[in-house]
Amino acid sequence: MDKKALQGVVVLDLTKVLAGPYCGSILADFGADVIKIEPQKGEDGRYYGPYLNGESLYFGNLNRGKRDITLNLKSEEGKEIFKKLVMKADMVIENFRPGVMDRLGLGYEDLKKINPRIIYGAISGFGKGSPYEKLGGYDIISQAMGGQMSVTGQENDPPTRSGNAIGDVLGGMNLALGLLVALQARNVTGEGQYVDVALVDSVAASLEQAWQRYFVSGKLPIRHGNYYDAIAPYDSYMASDGYLVIGCGNQALFEVFCRELLHREDLITDPRFLDVPLRVKNNKEFKVIVEEWLSDKTVDEAVDMLRAARIPSGPIWDLKQLSESEHAKARGMFVEVEHPVAGTMKLNASPIKLSDTPAKVRTAPPVLGADNEVILKDLGYSEEEIAELKEKKVI
Amino acid sequence: MDKKALQGVVVLDLTKVLAGPYCGSILADFGADVIKIEPQKGEDGRYYGPYLNGESLYFGNLNRGKRDITLNLKSEEGKEIFKKLVMKADMVIENFRPGVMDRLGLGYEDLKKINPRIIYGAISGFGKGSPYEKLGGYDIISQAMGGQMSVTGQENDPPTRSGNAIGDVLGGMNLALGLLVALQARNVTGEGQYVDVALVDSVAASLEQAWQRYFVSGKLPIRHGNYYDAIAPYDSYMASDGYLVIGCGNQALFEVFCRELLHREDLITDPRFLDVPLRVKNNKEFKVIVEEWLSDKTVDEAVDMLRAARIPSGPIWDLKQLSESEHAKARGMFVEVEHPVAGTMKLNASPIKLSDTPAKVRTAPPVLGADNEVILKDLGYSEEEIAELKEKKVI
Repeated sequence: MDKKALQGVVVLDLTKVLAGPYCGSILADFGADVIKIEPQKGEDGRYYGPYLNGESLYFGNLNRGKRDITLNLKSEEGKEIFKKLVMKADMVIENFRPGVMDRLGLGYEDLKKINPRIIYGAISGFGKGSPYEKLGGYDIISQAMGGQMSVTGQENDPPTRSGNAIGDVLGGMNLALGLLVALQARNVTGEGQYVDVALVDSVAASLEQAWQRYFVSGKLPIRHGNYYDAIAPYDSYMASDGYLVIGCGNQALFEVFCRELLHREDLITDPRFLDVPLRVKNNKEFKVIVEEWLSDKTVDEAVDMLRAARIPSGPIWDLKQLSESEHAKARGMFVEVEHPVAGTMKLNASPIKLSDTPAKVRTAPPVLGADNEVILKDLGYSEEEIAELKEKKVI
Repeated sequence: MDKKALQGVVVLDLTKVLAGPYCGSILADFGADVIKIEPQKGEDGRYYGPYLNGESLYFGNLNRGKRDITLNLKSEEGKEIFKKLVMKADMVIENFRPGVMDRLGLGYEDLKKINPRIIYGAISGFGKGSPYEKLGGYDIISQAMGGQMSVTGQENDPPTRSGNAIGDVLGGMNLALGLLVALQARNVTGEGQYVDVALVDSVAASLEQAWQRYFVSGKLPIRHGNYYDAIAPYDSYMASDGYLVIGCGNQALFEVFCRELLHREDLITDPRFLDVPLRVKNNKEFKVIVEEWLSDKTVDEAVDMLRAARIPSGPIWDLKQLSESEHAKARGMFVEVEHPVAGTMKLNASPIKLSDTPAKVRTAPPVLGADNEVILKDLGYSEEEIAELKEKKVI
């Protein structure tokens, strides 16, 4: 039997592009009934590549497992249908700028009058109460203003964004966390609440110790390639045919590395490398020693030696290497679904593995308005009324 | 009244360094009783700077709001105490390599016999079943093998890590998501389950559309600085005194940008820029036009103009600029707590804002073993027995 952790949880997903849809897809993977509500032209994500037979896989990966209706929320009939859906729902998620839903008469204060148990999740660039709350905020803006670009990059690089939309991903995950926490709270209080996540805040929180380092020292972290301010040796290193990474997170690992691999027991008592903060400070000097050791070894040879000695290390993989690896197969990292228009879509499986109620890509991403009829009939609309709604461009 | 969303949820936190502790801190911020269990020498994170009066703020930020006991899990008495705690707990989280807890006789199969409701969260570099499961995996290894480093960096850069420990942060958040999903499932099934998260998988999932792009085209994404493969114009741009970012995520925004700011209505119908995929393809040509427009404007001037026209954009902030901003104040992004040894610690507030049961840094991070006595007395140990446990180095 297909046991669903979020069986019976109904989510109305008004979101577009990445952060909100990613949140919705997490809930859908765990079995919530996520109803995506789109404007008639489709949300922006449907206009982004890559495409497969004209269907966006950008949209596809983020909206698998959802049902889909089109709805004009500016029309009176559209608002009425939305409110009927809210009466039966557990969660609403949206990523408009703060205030947009209020002006439509569909903000949290309006919706909780209809359904006090509703959990309302809002995600935006800057969040409620920010002086910038009225401004749109995409991922790149959150990486720019959230501090990410100031710390990412090689030594002489300009500010560099993380090569993925990490602000959106973090924001979507934070929203899902907030919704699940609110669901747990509702089991006790019986009431929903408002969950508010900003992309900028999500990026900033992910910078972890960089903040404390700055607050204590007053010194700004700089872009410095691949070493880490908190641990060393912990960096990328050049071998004879490319780069690999090594991380020694504690004294024991450092000593094994020096003794068994570098054959330099003297380094253990070298005053430059006595403890973690000293090794961070003198990271470059140690790196020279490591790269000298690596100069006659390939990445594969070195990683084999390091792993045999239980030193955390690894090659630097591209998407081909990872997706074709035994690791990817063993972990079920990718999954194929059949889409009615696009054909076979290869999507990312959930990275969250549960033993009893596993995540699953339950259905292919929906074509626009795929479930208009079923959902409206469930609300009691007749075929004639549905045809009229279509005619009037409500759906 | 201080309403706690996770009131009554007891979490035993055996984790160290970043991913696991970050997960525990999310649960603690929402009011779970998180009991950190450390070896007598303290977990590795206590050995990482920055320091304040000898106390690690690296540890501090990730372990606020937790209680703390020391426990030697290799001793029989230590195992017994741990099992007594498990009987009363809802969750156990650990980030040993898969198999370590089993060999101690404290794996999920052992613990569920004692408490079938226990939710067991494991986080490791590679996860259960991976050919690499026995290998240690720090953040940098997950960024290397998870694909992050292959896509991050400027055009001629070597593989570049995200400037924060993003693999650990994503992993910790995924674990928290899995635990909360399992908690919801337990409300229905009455039973706990095993939650398994790998850092490598967490990083890979965060690369979003890069996977679908590769699967469809067979072409590997390359490092290319700050533009995005899915949207354009969406990049960093040089103004007269520095860089700013601009993101036009849909046709309407693009047209406003051309018409009202660039005063180049012709670009809207220019065949190079007709839709999103074409604009991505010809991003560099459009960038020249934007940077020419910016050449006589400062970052602040340009951002003001862009914002006035509602074009998503922003400056690139460092940690000083963000932490001193009105945004940070309005959103309560940082919080100070008094620590008995370190004094005033400035920590990151939760980026997840709930209206009814808000997250909160409830207490300062614990000194090592701070709650040994209270917790052992709660389990029924007398003062004499506690003294003996200390003597025998069990606690």
